[in-house]
Amino acid sequence: MSEYIDQNPSGATIGIVEKLFFTFADKPELLRLESGADIGPVTIAYETCGTLNPEKDNVILVLHALSGDSHVAGYYDAKDTKPGWWDIMVGPGKGIDTDKYFIICINIIGSCAGSTGPSSMNPASGKAYATDFPLITIGDMVKCQKALMDHLGINSLLSVIGGSVGGMQVLEWAVRYPDMVKSAIPLATTTRHSALAIAFNEVARQAIMADPNWNDGYYYDGKKPDIGLALARMIGHITYLSDESMRLKFGRKLQNRSALSFEFGAEFAVESYLQYQGKKFIERFDANSFLYITKAADYFDLARQYGQGSLVKAFSNCTSKFLVVSYTSDWLYPTYQSREMVKAMKKNGLNVSFIEIDAQWGHDAFLLPNAHFDSLLRGFLRELPHEN
Amino acid sequence: MSEYIDQNPSGATIGIVEKLFFTFADKPELLRLESGADIGPVTIAYETCGTLNPEKDNVILVLHALSGDSHVAGYYDAKDTKPGWWDIMVGPGKGIDTDKYFIICINIIGSCAGSTGPSSMNPASGKAYATDFPLITIGDMVKCQKALMDHLGINSLLSVIGGSVGGMQVLEWAVRYPDMVKSAIPLATTTRHSALAIAFNEVARQAIMADPNWNDGYYYDGKKPDIGLALARMIGHITYLSDESMRLKFGRKLQNRSALSFEFGAEFAVESYLQYQGKKFIERFDANSFLYITKAADYFDLARQYGQGSLVKAFSNCTSKFLVVSYTSDWLYPTYQSREMVKAMKKNGLNVSFIEIDAQWGHDAFLLPNAHFDSLLRGFLRELPHEN
Repeated sequence: MSEYIDQNPSGATIGIVEKLFFTFADKPELLRLESGADIGPVTIAYETCGTLNPEKDNVILVLHALSGDSHVAGYYDAKDTKPGWWDIMVGPGKGIDTDKYFIICINIIGSCAGSTGPSSMNPASGKAYATDFPLITIGDMVKCQKALMDHLGINSLLSVIGGSVGGMQVLEWAVRYPDMVKSAIPLATTTRHSALAIAFNEVARQAIMADPNWNDGYYYDGKKPDIGLALARMIGHITYLSDESMRLKFGRKLQNRSALSFEFGAEFAVESYLQYQGKKFIERFDANSFLYITKAADYFDLARQYGQGSLVKAFSNCTSKFLVVSYTSDWLYPTYQSREMVKAMKKNGLNVSFIEIDAQWGHDAFLLPNAHFDSLLRGFLRELPHEN
Repeated sequence: MSEYIDQNPSGATIGIVEKLFFTFADKPELLRLESGADIGPVTIAYETCGTLNPEKDNVILVLHALSGDSHVAGYYDAKDTKPGWWDIMVGPGKGIDTDKYFIICINIIGSCAGSTGPSSMNPASGKAYATDFPLITIGDMVKCQKALMDHLGINSLLSVIGGSVGGMQVLEWAVRYPDMVKSAIPLATTTRHSALAIAFNEVARQAIMADPNWNDGYYYDGKKPDIGLALARMIGHITYLSDESMRLKFGRKLQNRSALSFEFGAEFAVESYLQYQGKKFIERFDANSFLYITKAADYFDLARQYGQGSLVKAFSNCTSKFLVVSYTSDWLYPTYQSREMVKAMKKNGLNVSFIEIDAQWGHDAFLLPNAHFDSLLRGFLRELPHEN
């Protein structure tokens, strides 16, 4: 997703939050991944907001997208000026109300924000895993999240919510642990990557791997593949926006000049914006993590993994209530893909609400304030049976 | 555009054609470019098919897109198995009928297929221009084409036709030389690049410039920036296809395997296809030419250049008859952009036919056989007044 929103329209905040860690799968009981590889120990970073009720039935799991992390809301300390990535949605009185719910946001395995990933130390070598890290899947991410729930003694999830790659995890949760998931809210997502989505991810990965500093992934002792990662981010960014939002935001505006310079370089505002986003990204993200997470997204295919080709079969054991949301201008995961999953859910007699939200901001729309979605979400959560 | 079509459905062919060259703008009279830079001598490569009638009024100019060349139809010799890039349209009895019309196709300045470009010798240094080559515009391309017409003694063009960047040249011709252009057929094009189109071009250019072999453009004596150019081509290719065409052509098919390998590399057919296209492109195209031509496309803005902000004004001196064609699945230059130009033409009282062709192949559709377009084009050309 593109730049996380840092405005806090209501002013309300959950306040100071702390990044927590849970380590499991230590020898001899390693974590068996979907690829067949074993890995351990595995550390999972997570954050919580709100209070777990005594019945432990007010838990909402928020799952983040490709470049997200566990820091969903609030601030790390009093000097921190940038709240978590979904602070507009998670807080007291907000759509995901911390006065009512206990919210857990978990950094995915493979990432670089506290959970074990390619930049973590490989116990076998004492150095970073780099590309010795095994390939992971959306299923592996969810398996780790389940291990944390077991650790926390939570065996019921009032809701699981997330957008994009986070939405894939939502679907995986609903299908993999049907008894545990009371409701699921996949936003701006898909049950399987289209060829178009795979194509963009592959070109972005190629951009990283083409950077001589990538060095087959073993760059942690030297220069990082910053140029490749910035390029990958720029490619991704285009797919998170839309023709309309780019026209409104940039059009053909020039950057800091009144006439064409007849030189190569960022002349148009949109060029300057993309370069800025690329530069900012390399400060906070690991190139190998980008490779691993995009590959997991490309591998994701609910019908293949659970239905042997049939999406209807994939949802056959589900019992969750669903709220499926797509956005009109999202061309990465267009509405027809949400309609396909809704159809398959309904064929299983599931209780599904589906809404296509009119939004011009492309795939990024799910991260942005939207009164329509806010009101829908409140209504959906309010109707769920729980003790609070 | 993606792979040129080399099928020859009707079997008819114009036969053997020859690449011709015209050199002008030799000292002291250099060519003044739109940037203000002077350049010369300038060589323009071109090919012709059919016969020029004595009245010299049966000329159709075919203008090529980003990666095209003057070889529009026919073969270079008896052993040649691959005809020109629009052989399906140009030949005896074909949509652009060589039995009736004299067809000229001109390689654009800045390119690398015979016309002067960054890979040509800079007379000042005796070496390739590289990035000492001045930036060019669509207007500069057309100015060179006009110089060739003058040289050939042709002062009337029955029609000017082209798609994509070729379509921009068509529009430039109609606006710049209104008395000369009897009819104009811009296909799958726009009067100005959107922010989205600029964004894709910029990321592709960045991919080339990030390749250490690019060496600020001075690579002609050493290794070429093949990896960067292949990446740029892969990015371009995605924009020439469509979600639908990629789903139909590749979907989630795996390449030469029955199961996921859990390794990085081209596993999906679409990944393999893109890598193949990237590899093939570096054999025939110059990375600097890619930079210069995409920049010219980004600069193109008929309203700014001719109407001081108003597209209606830009067409105010036009007299051509127009046939404007867009394709339903072309998301690089979507139909609304063609509608805008049609509206501006009509406000000037121009004779305009506009058709949005239902095609699933994305931007590439204009290069593919299409019975609907074929019949439209024949009808449109048949009604033009000329002596043949």
